[in-house]
Amino acid sequence: MSGASATARLALMNADVPHRAVNLADKLSQFDEHWAPRTVAEFNGHDVMVVKVKGEFVWHHHDDTDDLFLVLKGRITIRLRDGDVELGPGELFVVPVGVEHQPYAAEEAELLLIEPSGTSNTGDDTTAAARRAI
Amino acid sequence: MSGASATARLALMNADVPHRAVNLADKLSQFDEHWAPRTVAEFNGHDVMVVKVKGEFVWHHHDDTDDLFLVLKGRITIRLRDGDVELGPGELFVVPVGVEHQPYAAEEAELLLIEPSGTSNTGDDTTAAARRAI
Repeated sequence: MSGASATARLALMNADVPHRAVNLADKLSQFDEHWAPRTVAEFNGHDVMVVKVKGEFVWHHHDDTDDLFLVLKGRITIRLRDGDVELGPGELFVVPVGVEHQPYAAEEAELLLIEPSGTSNTGDDTTAAARRAI
Repeated sequence: MSGASATARLALMNADVPHRAVNLADKLSQFDEHWAPRTVAEFNGHDVMVVKVKGEFVWHHHDDTDDLFLVLKGRITIRLRDGDVELGPGELFVVPVGVEHQPYAAEEAELLLIEPSGTSNTGDDTTAAARRAI
């Protein structure tokens, strides 16, 4: 291996990664709980997650990360201290690091979320949902 | 400011960020070129991009980043040296760092991509598409 490039070594390390598409609807069909994200892929140290939401989440912020929301089904409101952002299917919003927000959904909605692996969904490890991969 | 927490400073820095949803279909309606991603949001040092694709892209890899593909419309194949990954709407795949791949679409397809800001789409700065935000 002494002559191998960093790239070749990385490719070798990844050679046994299963090559298959992640079908988001299929993943979402595997659970019913609200506000309990499931990790479906990993990307540059982040978890790519799907989640079902309904009702009001807690006001929270993240000290160290932006928070990406993409609506797959239904509608949500991301309440911010200085206004609301309304999102429907195919719409996304990034809550900047440090900004307080409260997600709200009048009816059940399905979202894709991306956060660094290990981020607590409430911004507080004592109240966060456990990390679950499916 | 000397007593302000890092979080409060970050929130202040972000206070003038416009709070609006990004509608992916609307962004995609603003251009026709293939293989020319448009940045529609920023997230933890990454560009969130939409792109229209048709035909065969070049074989390439990224030395420093995974490569996230989410199909919004149509179908694509991500060819890998040891097999193909077929993706339809609502399906995603993360090409691991260092792994050679060639995206291919028989018919036009629309994708969401996430890569660190400044990543060349061909893996080679001399042939990469320019960064364009819309």
